[in-house]
Amino acid sequence: MDYRMEHDSLGNHKVPVDAYYGVQTLRALENFDISGIPISRFDRMIQALAEVKKAACLANMELDLLPDSIGEAIVQACRDVRSGMLDSQFVVDVVQGGAGTSVNMNANEVICNRALEIAGHAKGEYHFIHPLNHVNLSQSTNDVYPTAFRIALVRYIDELIRAIRELREGLDAKGTEFARVIKMARTQLQDAVPITLGAEFAAWGVTVGEDIQRLEEMRLLLCEVNMGATAVGTGINSVVGYSDIVVTRLAGITGLPIRRAENLIEATSDAGAYVMLSGMLKRISVKISKICNDLRLLSSGPFTGLREINLPAVQPGSSIMPGKVNPVIPELVNQVAYQVIGNDMTVTMAAESGQLQLNVFLPIIAFNLFQGLEMLSRAFVTLRRRCIDGITANPERCLQLVKGSLGVVTALAPVLGYEEAASLVKQAQESGKDVCQIVRESGVANADEICSLLDPEMMLAPRARNNK
Amino acid sequence: MDYRMEHDSLGNHKVPVDAYYGVQTLRALENFDISGIPISRFDRMIQALAEVKKAACLANMELDLLPDSIGEAIVQACRDVRSGMLDSQFVVDVVQGGAGTSVNMNANEVICNRALEIAGHAKGEYHFIHPLNHVNLSQSTNDVYPTAFRIALVRYIDELIRAIRELREGLDAKGTEFARVIKMARTQLQDAVPITLGAEFAAWGVTVGEDIQRLEEMRLLLCEVNMGATAVGTGINSVVGYSDIVVTRLAGITGLPIRRAENLIEATSDAGAYVMLSGMLKRISVKISKICNDLRLLSSGPFTGLREINLPAVQPGSSIMPGKVNPVIPELVNQVAYQVIGNDMTVTMAAESGQLQLNVFLPIIAFNLFQGLEMLSRAFVTLRRRCIDGITANPERCLQLVKGSLGVVTALAPVLGYEEAASLVKQAQESGKDVCQIVRESGVANADEICSLLDPEMMLAPRARNNK
Amino acid sequence: MDYRMEHDSLGNHKVPVDAYYGVQTLRALENFDISGIPISRFDRMIQALAEVKKAACLANMELDLLPDSIGEAIVQACRDVRSGMLDSQFVVDVVQGGAGTSVNMNANEVICNRALEIAGHAKGEYHFIHPLNHVNLSQSTNDVYPTAFRIALVRYIDELIRAIRELREGLDAKGTEFARVIKMARTQLQDAVPITLGAEFAAWGVTVGEDIQRLEEMRLLLCEVNMGATAVGTGINSVVGYSDIVVTRLAGITGLPIRRAENLIEATSDAGAYVMLSGMLKRISVKISKICNDLRLLSSGPFTGLREINLPAVQPGSSIMPGKVNPVIPELVNQVAYQVIGNDMTVTMAAESGQLQLNVFLPIIAFNLFQGLEMLSRAFVTLRRRCIDGITANPERCLQLVKGSLGVVTALAPVLGYEEAASLVKQAQESGKDVCQIVRESGVANADEICSLLDPEMMLAPRARNNK
Amino acid sequence: MDYRMEHDSLGNHKVPVDAYYGVQTLRALENFDISGIPISRFDRMIQALAEVKKAACLANMELDLLPDSIGEAIVQACRDVRSGMLDSQFVVDVVQGGAGTSVNMNANEVICNRALEIAGHAKGEYHFIHPLNHVNLSQSTNDVYPTAFRIALVRYIDELIRAIRELREGLDAKGTEFARVIKMARTQLQDAVPITLGAEFAAWGVTVGEDIQRLEEMRLLLCEVNMGATAVGTGINSVVGYSDIVVTRLAGITGLPIRRAENLIEATSDAGAYVMLSGMLKRISVKISKICNDLRLLSSGPFTGLREINLPAVQPGSSIMPGKVNPVIPELVNQVAYQVIGNDMTVTMAAESGQLQLNVFLPIIAFNLFQGLEMLSRAFVTLRRRCIDGITANPERCLQLVKGSLGVVTALAPVLGYEEAASLVKQAQESGKDVCQIVRESGVANADEICSLLDPEMMLAPRARNNK
Repeated sequence: MDYRMEHDSLGNHKVPVDAYYGVQTLRALENFDISGIPISRFDRMIQALAEVKKAACLANMELDLLPDSIGEAIVQACRDVRSGMLDSQFVVDVVQGGAGTSVNMNANEVICNRALEIAGHAKGEYHFIHPLNHVNLSQSTNDVYPTAFRIALVRYIDELIRAIRELREGLDAKGTEFARVIKMARTQLQDAVPITLGAEFAAWGVTVGEDIQRLEEMRLLLCEVNMGATAVGTGINSVVGYSDIVVTRLAGITGLPIRRAENLIEATSDAGAYVMLSGMLKRISVKISKICNDLRLLSSGPFTGLREINLPAVQPGSSIMPGKVNPVIPELVNQVAYQVIGNDMTVTMAAESGQLQLNVFLPIIAFNLFQGLEMLSRAFVTLRRRCIDGITANPERCLQLVKGSLGVVTALAPVLGYEEAASLVKQAQESGKDVCQIVRESGVANADEICSLLDPEMMLAPRARNNK
Repeated sequence: MDYRMEHDSLGNHKVPVDAYYGVQTLRALENFDISGIPISRFDRMIQALAEVKKAACLANMELDLLPDSIGEAIVQACRDVRSGMLDSQFVVDVVQGGAGTSVNMNANEVICNRALEIAGHAKGEYHFIHPLNHVNLSQSTNDVYPTAFRIALVRYIDELIRAIRELREGLDAKGTEFARVIKMARTQLQDAVPITLGAEFAAWGVTVGEDIQRLEEMRLLLCEVNMGATAVGTGINSVVGYSDIVVTRLAGITGLPIRRAENLIEATSDAGAYVMLSGMLKRISVKISKICNDLRLLSSGPFTGLREINLPAVQPGSSIMPGKVNPVIPELVNQVAYQVIGNDMTVTMAAESGQLQLNVFLPIIAFNLFQGLEMLSRAFVTLRRRCIDGITANPERCLQLVKGSLGVVTALAPVLGYEEAASLVKQAQESGKDVCQIVRESGVANADEICSLLDPEMMLAPRARNNK
Repeated sequence: MDYRMEHDSLGNHKVPVDAYYGVQTLRALENFDISGIPISRFDRMIQALAEVKKAACLANMELDLLPDSIGEAIVQACRDVRSGMLDSQFVVDVVQGGAGTSVNMNANEVICNRALEIAGHAKGEYHFIHPLNHVNLSQSTNDVYPTAFRIALVRYIDELIRAIRELREGLDAKGTEFARVIKMARTQLQDAVPITLGAEFAAWGVTVGEDIQRLEEMRLLLCEVNMGATAVGTGINSVVGYSDIVVTRLAGITGLPIRRAENLIEATSDAGAYVMLSGMLKRISVKISKICNDLRLLSSGPFTGLREINLPAVQPGSSIMPGKVNPVIPELVNQVAYQVIGNDMTVTMAAESGQLQLNVFLPIIAFNLFQGLEMLSRAFVTLRRRCIDGITANPERCLQLVKGSLGVVTALAPVLGYEEAASLVKQAQESGKDVCQIVRESGVANADEICSLLDPEMMLAPRARNNK
Repeated sequence: MDYRMEHDSLGNHKVPVDAYYGVQTLRALENFDISGIPISRFDRMIQALAEVKKAACLANMELDLLPDSIGEAIVQACRDVRSGMLDSQFVVDVVQGGAGTSVNMNANEVICNRALEIAGHAKGEYHFIHPLNHVNLSQSTNDVYPTAFRIALVRYIDELIRAIRELREGLDAKGTEFARVIKMARTQLQDAVPITLGAEFAAWGVTVGEDIQRLEEMRLLLCEVNMGATAVGTGINSVVGYSDIVVTRLAGITGLPIRRAENLIEATSDAGAYVMLSGMLKRISVKISKICNDLRLLSSGPFTGLREINLPAVQPGSSIMPGKVNPVIPELVNQVAYQVIGNDMTVTMAAESGQLQLNVFLPIIAFNLFQGLEMLSRAFVTLRRRCIDGITANPERCLQLVKGSLGVVTALAPVLGYEEAASLVKQAQESGKDVCQIVRESGVANADEICSLLDPEMMLAPRARNNK
């Protein structure tokens, strides 16, 4: 392989001649061989880095800090990176020490060498265009990395919102479809009172849908960035006015409502926004996991379980039990939920461990949030398309369970009193007789009226006042 | 001891004759002997139960479901409970099975017996006023318990907001006091660039203060209750209109912006709000723990550490090392933070494990949220009063560290280029000479100008444009 | 109230004249008002402190470091503390800063004042016997607190082992009782193949019982203590030989196989043993929670659930649904499990945050481990006595579910091949016919043989080789 | 692309003609698109699957359940899979529903088609050799997957043990190298008493090394497998004796002390061993994270921190601050620790959620344990090679800190009493004078003796008895 020689403050290092990255990227590769996952795996992060670098370059040009010839080459290089054509050059491990310095340097080097190429120079001729003096001008890893990170998060969140919406619509549709299927509600897994299957699906839809608004609020909070903070928030090595310009440019480039944090020192050290997002992903996971548990419960059987609904069969279920079909999609989603909940713990510890002016553990936070957002999005779409849409109900089974259950006696409590009603349940259980039958046999005058109260249809909503 | 005899569907049971609670409370006492902490430990929960029961009673009276004589006695009994005079009667263990049924029954029985007393009857004469048929009328544990729980949470949140505000003001005051103390910022525990001590405290103030707004949003979400849901959200055994009336009454009684959840079935089964609150408490904990870590770091020493600030001595620090003073208050707060973060995991698992129409694990969620809210409130106040207020700075030490550090070379990079500046650092480290001295010895023309850039005061903000 | 005046390096402080504790305990009370739970809540910790102080005193006497007159009074005072008669004097909050210094000082002061009393002096006359110079002689909080903590843990572990053993015996008894009840196994909540109910209970017994051995190994590891380490493990201010003597004495006093850690510096800073214990409690919790989930599932109904077993009714289940009985005991145990799992996170964070020569966060670790051990012990005993012992089976229901299920077709796969067997399931589902009937109608020669394979009794174990 | 047609109980499906996998693998690919990580990423799992399948095949042949011609082809195919030559065919997502069925089917299909090829048939000609009837004979996913999983874990554990040993040796070497470097110990980040730098490194070595024994114990527990359990532990569809034979064969093939679990029903449903392993990985992470925190603290500076040691520079530290070098390797390891701690939570939730006869969530447990084990191994080796080995000490700085500190006064407490010694500290702090000087000025008789006690060398161990 052919090489060019580069150097940094640690000395010389050979770099593959075709590589757009340079010596600092190579050192990072040698230092960080942990996850096997290159930063390019999360392509929105690469796009966001290109957007940030471009905004900074434009601001520098506007402030006459950068000659147009250099600036224009850098801007074009940023466009190329943003297009994805240089993704293969973003090679550093997503898990790394140094608060993202290696990611920033990877970006600086790739953009620089691409700009050199555009300007007619050879890669590595940094005396024309320099990765630090020009590409990184007025910037620091400590503002570039978190800003790009936040933009990438916003894009992943948008995808998750779309996925949630898709799932919600699927649940709503089933809510409508099953609106007339009467079944028994269960509390504590014990027979409770009648409800409809549609109401269950509709309630899940509400539960899931609530998070759309929460995510949209979160999205806005994340659009607050610390560009211009440079190293620690004081703006050292930037010039007055730069911060406003770069943020305005960034808003334009990204199409997002980017704005500058009020206190740049706070914004540079605080990882609270990531903890908040992670907590929201955990909440989403808790809810969807509960829903998947319910789906697996309601479809349990086919003979020895509840069997109120049927999940679509998407693959044979067993290598030993012929004909077995398993709820593999809800099971998948449960596992994604557990993953995100675990990731939240990682994010929490990393955030808590920040010290003084910086949280150096952003890379592991990024890895866990990116993974969680992506997995959740895929899980929601999969759940809708490969499970919810194909669910069918067993209305006869549902009704049979309602009719056999004694939970309907609840409706008699306001008339007979709690203790009398409880006594009816006991008599029914012991005798195996129907509640209505027992009432009639007891010879009470209003037996007909009482029996009429046992109609499950009547129990789906508050009773009219004159029923009191 | 004297007893009266009570019975429920499991049979007869002796009850201490003076007890306001009854047979079902006693069964709960026998079943749940786990934490040793009675529900009365969290007095806001008892108050909220009284408010909920009163609102329901008023609604029942308004709907002519309850004779005035009975209703008025119940209302008075609720007032007495709310005043705290019957706290000792709320004896069931805060950790319990059954989704809060035992707490609800404890409330029903205490209110009922107090109402009986008010109405001139003996305790236990439930044929006059009945804990279920009258006190619990139109209600279920599944709407009473979560509604009271939410009201109690709002009250605890209000207290936490006050505590955060108090801490924030303390940090702000120190931010002002130390605004002129120049010191080195540190990133990754390595010398970075100058900053002021005041800016550090001010940034902490911002970090802490941000959560006030988040908690106020959360507070509003928690004011959405499911009264009228009764057992599973369908409103069975309530009458049309009851739900609106009881919610309106509850808003009036509590003075809170209580409103009814749109989908009562969803509201009865979903524990998402608690996960969200718990996640917020976790976020608050992560931030305050980071701040306490920083306080301990900056006050480390007195001789072998950073010694930039002094924490007030609040107790002798060691049983073996005379004169040692330890940062016990920040250490205390760190531990509270770890507790709340652990509690969040408990809440998460409990919320995820809800099934179908109910989350039966609300009691453990309540225990962990109440404990976390209370501990955080106390920790914030303690931190302010016993630590922050008494902090003093060591400005000479701070300045000495700035002057000895090479981080100030950063300011030369825009003029000399990154690599040249890095080379200066190396020469200074190897020779032990002052950077300015090296510059002068190198014979460059603008040595004076360069040296003037090394003034730390100049590095606390972006430079003027004409400095470029 | 009457006071005596005491002083420490922070100045004078009034102390209630009857108090056995002194000025440093009072300062701790003022500093730490967080949990409301005094250290005396965990009485095994107080006992262990008394044992440690007594062992140190005896070692000091043996080394002629302490006059007999003083030593004997201290030894007697330690005996009194150990007996529990001074529990009310251990008032400092269990959650505290300072690595346990306040607990150690509370013990030094109480023992000192009791010793003064025994020696005929007044409380507070520390010129006769001094809490630090005499009671704490050759010791530091950093060896006393962890040593006492470990002894207390061992005692709580012993109690947990007893509770696990009790539960295991209960499960084994039910395993035997239900050994002939054939039922369907379920994997992924779908019908699998036959099994016996007894085998399920027996398997739970094995799962639960395994942890007894793990806890016994853990117990031994915890008996390794760092007495003699004093402040940081170097043994400063102790004399040669003290360490061996105090450990030998402690073993004698406690009756436990106490031994000295090999590397006292490591032993003083490392919190790994607590993480390990906490991890084991988490594992125990995971298992018991899974078992309780299963119990709730198998007893679900009574009509709309699985109804294979009946849990004993221990209290009425609902304030609105008459006759409802809920699985409150398993629900209780689930919640305890969630608590312990959350506590593990607290322990983990506290352990990770130790710095250099000490983990200052032992108090929160102690609180969480003590609480977890106690709750688990109580939960296991409650589960056995109030649930497992009263469980009854529904053998007819179980058998009916086996007979109706198509999972038994599994047994045909070795004879017919997987695909042919799967096809039979499909035909049976579509036609509603019995598998055997379909086989017969298909006209195969060995229909009788095939049908004989469908006997559930045959499926409970590997088949004889000649059946192949 | 060319296809062959395959079918399963869900119908026909085109399979790429060159693929060794078949229809069920394809369905899994369509169902599970979540992590983007194929199971082949964890090659030890593929190897272990090949070993398990081979052992089962040999057992089947020994029991005359499989013709030699088929058996030999399968055995050869297993060898090929084990060699890694078919890794690219293991394409199913590591995160999947169905308890590992898709992994087992992927293995069955790849082995089957390779065996067909070996036997001279075309891929897909399952009437000669069938993935279920022959390759999966006497097996179920529920015994194959956990058994292979455990073998893979043992191999990853062995690698981790090697990595821990390597790190431990590095720490021990530094312990020896720095054995004479006297420095101040710090407790609670406050000056404590003298210690040596070597003792600190040696203590870390002990802390790290302890886990080797724990992992070796864990390794043995994991060698207990449930082969022969088939679907639920009853051994349905296996023949008597098979279980013993397959386990013996597996021990021979793997060279591991594999043995059969005593209770196969328990072994099939219990995930406790994974929770235990995960807990151990968490403990290892807690410890190494604490050590890395210490390394970062001790090397903080170069000017404004503790600066007792220097970490080797492995890359430039900042894109804005020239000459800055950061502790990126310890920072990397911290993050790996946080990841593993988060993963433990995922494992915990997945384990807790198992139901009845199976834990269906093994795939996410496998993913998290594999990732954690691999990351930890890499992190330990990286820490040793890129950090520990290159650490140098600053002995003069260390000594200077000892001499300036007042912590040495501790040694005077046994002679002067605690309060007198504390008073000396106060005088020294206020006057800025040397402790010895104050003592001399006080005119006490034994001033020389007292001053001699202040020699730090004397404070590194217990004093001789005649010093008392």
